[in-house]
Amino acid sequence: MSAEELVARHQPTLDAALAAIRTREYFSAYPESPSPRVYGESAAPAGQAAFDAWLGQDFPLEIPGADGRIATERSPYGPDLGVRYPRITADGLDALLSSARDAMPSWREAGPAVRSAVCVEVLARLHARVFALANAVQHTTGQAFVMAFQAGGTHALDRALEAIAYAHEEQNRTPATAYWEKPAGKGEPLRMTKTFHIVPRGVALVIGCNTFPTWNSWPGLFGSLATGNAVVVKPHPHAVLPLAITVQTAREVLSELGFDPNLVTLAAEDPADRLAQDLAVRPEVKIIDFTGSSEFGSWLEDNARQAVVYTEKSGVNTVVVDSTDDFAGMCRNLAFSVSLYTGQMCTAPQSIFVPREGIGTDEGHKSFAEVGAGIATAVEKLLADDGRAVEVLGAVVNAGVLGRLDAASSHGEVVLASRALQHPAWPEATVRTPTIVALDAGDTEVYSAECFGPVSYLIATDSTEASIALLRDTVSDHGGMTASVYSADEKVVQAAEQAAMDAGVALSVNLTGGVFVNQSAAFSDYHGTGANPAANAALIDGAFVAQRFRIMQSRRHA
Amino acid sequence: MSAEELVARHQPTLDAALAAIRTREYFSAYPESPSPRVYGESAAPAGQAAFDAWLGQDFPLEIPGADGRIATERSPYGPDLGVRYPRITADGLDALLSSARDAMPSWREAGPAVRSAVCVEVLARLHARVFALANAVQHTTGQAFVMAFQAGGTHALDRALEAIAYAHEEQNRTPATAYWEKPAGKGEPLRMTKTFHIVPRGVALVIGCNTFPTWNSWPGLFGSLATGNAVVVKPHPHAVLPLAITVQTAREVLSELGFDPNLVTLAAEDPADRLAQDLAVRPEVKIIDFTGSSEFGSWLEDNARQAVVYTEKSGVNTVVVDSTDDFAGMCRNLAFSVSLYTGQMCTAPQSIFVPREGIGTDEGHKSFAEVGAGIATAVEKLLADDGRAVEVLGAVVNAGVLGRLDAASSHGEVVLASRALQHPAWPEATVRTPTIVALDAGDTEVYSAECFGPVSYLIATDSTEASIALLRDTVSDHGGMTASVYSADEKVVQAAEQAAMDAGVALSVNLTGGVFVNQSAAFSDYHGTGANPAANAALIDGAFVAQRFRIMQSRRHA
Repeated sequence: MSAEELVARHQPTLDAALAAIRTREYFSAYPESPSPRVYGESAAPAGQAAFDAWLGQDFPLEIPGADGRIATERSPYGPDLGVRYPRITADGLDALLSSARDAMPSWREAGPAVRSAVCVEVLARLHARVFALANAVQHTTGQAFVMAFQAGGTHALDRALEAIAYAHEEQNRTPATAYWEKPAGKGEPLRMTKTFHIVPRGVALVIGCNTFPTWNSWPGLFGSLATGNAVVVKPHPHAVLPLAITVQTAREVLSELGFDPNLVTLAAEDPADRLAQDLAVRPEVKIIDFTGSSEFGSWLEDNARQAVVYTEKSGVNTVVVDSTDDFAGMCRNLAFSVSLYTGQMCTAPQSIFVPREGIGTDEGHKSFAEVGAGIATAVEKLLADDGRAVEVLGAVVNAGVLGRLDAASSHGEVVLASRALQHPAWPEATVRTPTIVALDAGDTEVYSAECFGPVSYLIATDSTEASIALLRDTVSDHGGMTASVYSADEKVVQAAEQAAMDAGVALSVNLTGGVFVNQSAAFSDYHGTGANPAANAALIDGAFVAQRFRIMQSRRHA
Repeated sequence: MSAEELVARHQPTLDAALAAIRTREYFSAYPESPSPRVYGESAAPAGQAAFDAWLGQDFPLEIPGADGRIATERSPYGPDLGVRYPRITADGLDALLSSARDAMPSWREAGPAVRSAVCVEVLARLHARVFALANAVQHTTGQAFVMAFQAGGTHALDRALEAIAYAHEEQNRTPATAYWEKPAGKGEPLRMTKTFHIVPRGVALVIGCNTFPTWNSWPGLFGSLATGNAVVVKPHPHAVLPLAITVQTAREVLSELGFDPNLVTLAAEDPADRLAQDLAVRPEVKIIDFTGSSEFGSWLEDNARQAVVYTEKSGVNTVVVDSTDDFAGMCRNLAFSVSLYTGQMCTAPQSIFVPREGIGTDEGHKSFAEVGAGIATAVEKLLADDGRAVEVLGAVVNAGVLGRLDAASSHGEVVLASRALQHPAWPEATVRTPTIVALDAGDTEVYSAECFGPVSYLIATDSTEASIALLRDTVSDHGGMTASVYSADEKVVQAAEQAAMDAGVALSVNLTGGVFVNQSAAFSDYHGTGANPAANAALIDGAFVAQRFRIMQSRRHA
């Protein structure tokens, strides 16, 4: 297929995405339902078979600079995956990064239109493998299958397409050429022709996380690739497979179209090597996208000074409960939010501020304890049936989460105790329901730190005014990916919105139905703001792509 | 005047600017000729009178946190200006920055359209004072009057308008509101309304330079102001007046329109206070725009970690001479480029690489010495008449320039000696013609450092290929704001363009007429690339404005 044909083929998808980022109305290019009615009867078993075939094998991928193979993954559902990837060590970085740099000139010359089309083609191929990907995401992150299919598959594809659309638009803001004619009084005008080249920054490094290896990595990966950079993907050692599939697919497409596959490489490591630290400060690396701990994110910001660094770190997500005209809906909504994927989402609510005198509701006054009981009961109902519960909870991703969960009960009064579940299909899976612990507003040392996992705090405050002040202060000082407010009083909502603006966090208002504060819809919701300590960038706005390339002009007399 | 009326009044100007940044064709909103036929007979004398009236007086400006007054300016043409500004010291920063922060909420609420219109109104008022401004620029920078009028007045206004246009467009890429309806199979769709707030980063700090106090400061100033931030302007102590006029004008407009004038403040200092260092690391300061030395620019990048930092530092501008079919035109063009404003431009050529075997021209083969002689003779002709020469040269801005000029002759063989001129109107002015010194390609330690001022090196290389390699290496390692190539061979031009792309510098090709490598036209030419050590940003692209604000969304059920 020629480049022109590829551009023509994907133009409708790209145009639809470009329209969506202008309106931020609902749009999705990749159906989120894994139903056979959508994907056909054979898609799910074929994806399962593809996944099974990788287990215990060398993953079919060769990477410059690799030294042998390494397997580092164990499913949160139990089994070791045993998939062996080309291992990169510090000794291999020269070869790896040279190959990445050498791949760039022809990619730069291809121009934005071709690069966008190639990137959308990669997404199409990943979409064709979405069931295999979903298995890979499930068995590296612990997400339940449907969530892995959506958050790790189709929704991640939408976010990737959004990044490509922003990159495409950003590059096309400058014309490829311009004719410049300046009047010169009675004399001949000055006449120049100008050429504007889009020049990539260099090698981009994407550092993946354990819980959302695709959703959080693809925007940076495709944002950098679409703007002409080569990309080295350094996966989390416990979540390599989804990104290995990604890299393999990208390399396949690039090769078929006559580009150098080393534009996209995988740097799988032995975790003891701490390869990300070595990679991040290499002079060839000019862009870094990172999702993970505040500690390493801040280290990157402080040390990888040769690069533009985009970080999503940790934060404390807050909920202000003032009043509601749908108490049952509020409790159901919060119950789902704290349960989904065992609270292992950077967007899950953690601190729920409730006036100690209680709140007004459609069911009359509810005391602080009754609010806690309402949410706790909703969680219990949601997760009453083990078989259905595991489809919400998934599995606990690692021992750190368990440790924090076990320690949580010592921080305050347990409103809802965590319960261990037996997974019907995966007996070795660690499955836990969330806990809710009551605190007082004075317990700042407890609730001002992120407690990643299924732990929520119900925090008694002096008033809603005090709750809103705590939202502002907590987010400003400790960061936050989400915030939400429940109030039947528009003035309170407005005050919360002002506080959210001051603190720089997105706000969800009175969610009582089928939308949850954890969820961030591609093309419409911004994920993060870049305005508080939890993240220095947002998915996805102009700022997320504008620094991934530079414009180099050339001019001469016409 | 209401905000709506103001928006309507300036919409045509803004629309024209928005169109220009899309095409990058010729556009200017502010006539560059100071002729009475354009500006009327009274404009020049009125501007002169306004300037004279400030001399030796308290400048009419009150700034929160100021402690007394300070005068720090002496004209490069001789006289002390004696203009006294409100003095800010470290003790005044709390009050100054509090006033800036307090001014922001209503400015944020005004929204992008009103902010853009207010900013364009400030430009209109500055344009009305352009003759006073031109005098202020002339007598702080040493630029000749017409250059001060253009580079310091109308061209700077165009660059400011360009920044406002980019900021306007960037903010308008996201709609103010969106309706989101997600299909839900057979059930009711999910329906949300979403609001997207443009939220400024905080206080923006603009650190001005001595040579281009307006042209280099206004893009950051107006880019930050248009996106909702408050701006503290810290002028160079030797070039306060042009920015004091700017701040006064902005405050006047803001007050008239009901906004807090403390959105724009001036931080004039005693140079011994080194106030920029204190200001730059204040937590309130979230954006910094700096033009000046690499030393302080790098310090800012390393230390002002709480802020987004845009720096234009120093670099080495290179010319590759391979061949030409207009030898006389080439020599004339280079002569003007090295003479204009005594070489005190960050864009002036410094290193002219010529093959030691000479070059082919329309006048036959020219030896290395003949190329040097050609340029030297062209400089002598251009500057033969003292009265005309000073209109090109202006005055030497400070003793540092003189010192470097005096030292230059020791570096190599003097091809053209500098000459001291007597300014016909300003006997105390220090006026010098440029020097050209011949070096060998091996003298890297000399020509790899910026020698700011009227010093050019004619550097003998082994070949044009070697010259192009030196262009690539010099710019990559030491930075460069401009580069140019002279060649009658398109293959050589292409090779130079590749090298310029690799090094990340703008290239001018075969300039032999009335366009000079030093010149960067607003709306068309990018000034800097952000891709080499001379600057980490470009004037003006999307990246220059995208980080000056954040988007904060709020969503609720529809």
